[in-house]
Amino acid sequence: MKNKADIGMIGMAVMGENLSMNMERHGYTVAVYDIWDGVVDKFMNGRGKGKNFIPADSFEDLVSKLETPRVVMMMIRAGAPVDETIGKLLPLLSPGDIIIDGGNSHFPDTDRRCKLVEEHGMLYIGTGVSGGAEGAYIGPSMMPGGSPEAWPRVKPILQDICAKVDDGSPCCDWVGEGGAGHFVKMVHNGIEYGDMQLICEAYQVMRDYLGMTAEEMHAVFADWNEGVLDSYLIGITADILTRKDEDGSPLLDKILDTAGQKGTGKWTAISALDEGIPLTLIGEAVFARCLSAVKEERVAASKILSGPSVKFEGDRGAFLADLKNALYASKIVSYAQGYSLMRQAAVTYGWNLNYGGIALMWRGGCIIRSVFLGKIKEAFDQDPDITNLMLAPYFKDALTNAEDGWRRVAAAGILAGIPMPAMTSALAYFDGYRTERLPANLLQAQRDYFGAHTYERVDAPRGQFFHTDWMNGEVGDTASTQYNA
Amino acid sequence: MKNKADIGMIGMAVMGENLSMNMERHGYTVAVYDIWDGVVDKFMNGRGKGKNFIPADSFEDLVSKLETPRVVMMMIRAGAPVDETIGKLLPLLSPGDIIIDGGNSHFPDTDRRCKLVEEHGMLYIGTGVSGGAEGAYIGPSMMPGGSPEAWPRVKPILQDICAKVDDGSPCCDWVGEGGAGHFVKMVHNGIEYGDMQLICEAYQVMRDYLGMTAEEMHAVFADWNEGVLDSYLIGITADILTRKDEDGSPLLDKILDTAGQKGTGKWTAISALDEGIPLTLIGEAVFARCLSAVKEERVAASKILSGPSVKFEGDRGAFLADLKNALYASKIVSYAQGYSLMRQAAVTYGWNLNYGGIALMWRGGCIIRSVFLGKIKEAFDQDPDITNLMLAPYFKDALTNAEDGWRRVAAAGILAGIPMPAMTSALAYFDGYRTERLPANLLQAQRDYFGAHTYERVDAPRGQFFHTDWMNGEVGDTASTQYNA
Repeated sequence: MKNKADIGMIGMAVMGENLSMNMERHGYTVAVYDIWDGVVDKFMNGRGKGKNFIPADSFEDLVSKLETPRVVMMMIRAGAPVDETIGKLLPLLSPGDIIIDGGNSHFPDTDRRCKLVEEHGMLYIGTGVSGGAEGAYIGPSMMPGGSPEAWPRVKPILQDICAKVDDGSPCCDWVGEGGAGHFVKMVHNGIEYGDMQLICEAYQVMRDYLGMTAEEMHAVFADWNEGVLDSYLIGITADILTRKDEDGSPLLDKILDTAGQKGTGKWTAISALDEGIPLTLIGEAVFARCLSAVKEERVAASKILSGPSVKFEGDRGAFLADLKNALYASKIVSYAQGYSLMRQAAVTYGWNLNYGGIALMWRGGCIIRSVFLGKIKEAFDQDPDITNLMLAPYFKDALTNAEDGWRRVAAAGILAGIPMPAMTSALAYFDGYRTERLPANLLQAQRDYFGAHTYERVDAPRGQFFHTDWMNGEVGDTASTQYNA
Repeated sequence: MKNKADIGMIGMAVMGENLSMNMERHGYTVAVYDIWDGVVDKFMNGRGKGKNFIPADSFEDLVSKLETPRVVMMMIRAGAPVDETIGKLLPLLSPGDIIIDGGNSHFPDTDRRCKLVEEHGMLYIGTGVSGGAEGAYIGPSMMPGGSPEAWPRVKPILQDICAKVDDGSPCCDWVGEGGAGHFVKMVHNGIEYGDMQLICEAYQVMRDYLGMTAEEMHAVFADWNEGVLDSYLIGITADILTRKDEDGSPLLDKILDTAGQKGTGKWTAISALDEGIPLTLIGEAVFARCLSAVKEERVAASKILSGPSVKFEGDRGAFLADLKNALYASKIVSYAQGYSLMRQAAVTYGWNLNYGGIALMWRGGCIIRSVFLGKIKEAFDQDPDITNLMLAPYFKDALTNAEDGWRRVAAAGILAGIPMPAMTSALAYFDGYRTERLPANLLQAQRDYFGAHTYERVDAPRGQFFHTDWMNGEVGDTASTQYNA
């Protein structure tokens, strides 16, 4: 065993511990430290026993045990702890040393910290790490961005420990400067919110409309996991449905229906609002978690507000095929919206994002890993400048094939009183995006009517603004454009 | 004419000009100033001629022409101009003088400015002003908040010039401290986005699914404006549909379908995400504007992505009755969501909001004024602690009556390929809110599976968290609660 470690890990909770195990398995010596007393000891006497780990009992101790240029990775709670830890590390490090933040930091924070650390002569990387506890151990997806000079130094470690797709390509590559890595991770998490909500909606339709048992639902998800929907989240859903509680009944039925969240889905939706990009499905998914959280309110409301009592009649197999199409088409919409957001953010922040590369990073290791992402990679390989993923030939055909079933399921859910916010909002986006003429002409007329906001005309060049004196001069006709002058 | 003015107006664009005219008509002498050369001269020689206005040609000049304690109102563009103007005013004012910001400032800015101005010994009011150009002139709705000591001094002016409801009650009352007034105005604007989007969806259904002419649609909106939907926006919609272009065809058909926005709808949605309150309808309305803006993309997509070609068959009158119900029920949902947001924000910011009073302020004068708001006022008069507006007896009955038609319209739109994002998201919220058991139990199982996030159980007290070792110890079972410890 070496005297000095290749990398230092700060934060030995589940993610830090599993990442450290992963690094050690790949031949790296890892110095480990946690601000909480006893955590490192417990690890060294447990999973870390007899392996190439060097325990540290302070920041100073940790830094003293690292090869130079030093690489220190933080796997700690996002927010103030990250700033505090950077503050402790900076006086201990030397120029060229690298600090990595592998937590779920908000990308503007990473942008700011990257500048701060660079000002001190050190280098900074903010990397998304996805795959949960399991992924951290066997190979996560990683999305690093920050100081470009740091990448060659950490590339071998990160690409060694990350997930690989079938052809051996690593699910980790350089994303871009500043906060780009954490931005892409944030969008990943938003998409994860969307994927999970879509699966939940399909589950609710099966449970509450089709009246299926856990066993029957397991069979459906297991079947879906063989085809175009083949993905980690569908797989674990099938798995979850087999799990029994101590009394032999499905464990799932005992779990309370109040979803938690840690903010990254919310950040994605806020970013979309800031960028002016319709990210309706993820927005609905975030709000659905909020709605699930007010359990007591819902229980009370369920006794006051009634809905239809429609029992499913018809061919269950055919309906399940429609449901699969609804899930698949909605998923395409969600990713199309997420990619649109990344495209716009790249313009706003001056990042040169590699969209196919991002699909490859997400293809394996992370929570949203799926066969589907391979198709997105292929679509970007064919045309790196796709305006909207729905227009790529593969996805256009997939949507066309899925469309009828998607509509039937959405309509049935609406008539039966089953909430399907993500699937129906996806459909509204699909229909809106393919509509040449939306009703926003009326909206512009209204805005010009009450606020003199002006409008453009279908028969005049874009950028030429008109105002109609709708109220015949009663209250002056100064146009809003003058107001803003 | 007095030598000194009762109030000074900074910014003589359409809103400032009309508010000044309104004040003067009510017997106040108004000193007027605009940083742009010629604006004040033009006004004094135009609409202001022979009236009680005192022109000013600089900030110093304006301040010197005001009675003490001075009241200066800014009707200028939100953002940096407001900070700059405050910066110019502070050295010129004396303790106890009042600065009013009547623009669409973001409530955290108003909070900050209120503190700043108070530190200098002056008082500050940030007030929402709604009603557009017409409202500013004949009587707007106003939502003032800020320094409570300033309210008695400006109350007479603001309540003189504001709109009145039938019994003479002013549509202006004190909202709360700091940024509360602008917060409530922001929610008003978000609701305005929702109302407009709902009308647009109804219009698109009539235009593209029912194939109605402008004249026919005018008749429907004019009819709707007589009943429960009686409101300013429905009224102007009916009016807009009568307007002809120079060639005699409906002007509306010539207006480009790309909606603009000024940010307040977006702020409302972001605030809802921050507060964890599902504000799905307004969120969809904001995103619908974003989608309308990418006209070129939509035109291109309309040639690639096809949809169903369903022609309406059936009883048009019956369908229009359903459509009215869909619009009405969705509107109830939108206001219920908006009020939920205000309730949560009041907790977060420590405001003591008067919900019935807010409905009264919105009842007249503003863009969303309607008979409907009178019903909300009544609901809060009956029970000031309503958890959710949908549960108030009047609205519960209204939803029950409207529900079947709402579902039929939503399902028909989905099957016909007509995007109705706001109406369908409202329905999903209604169905979600009245669902005792949502599918979020699966979501929690997934989160515990991949991230050890733990879950609560239906058969255990709230606040007790469980973790299942879904993968049988393969990767360690440190729960996320420990991670966050």
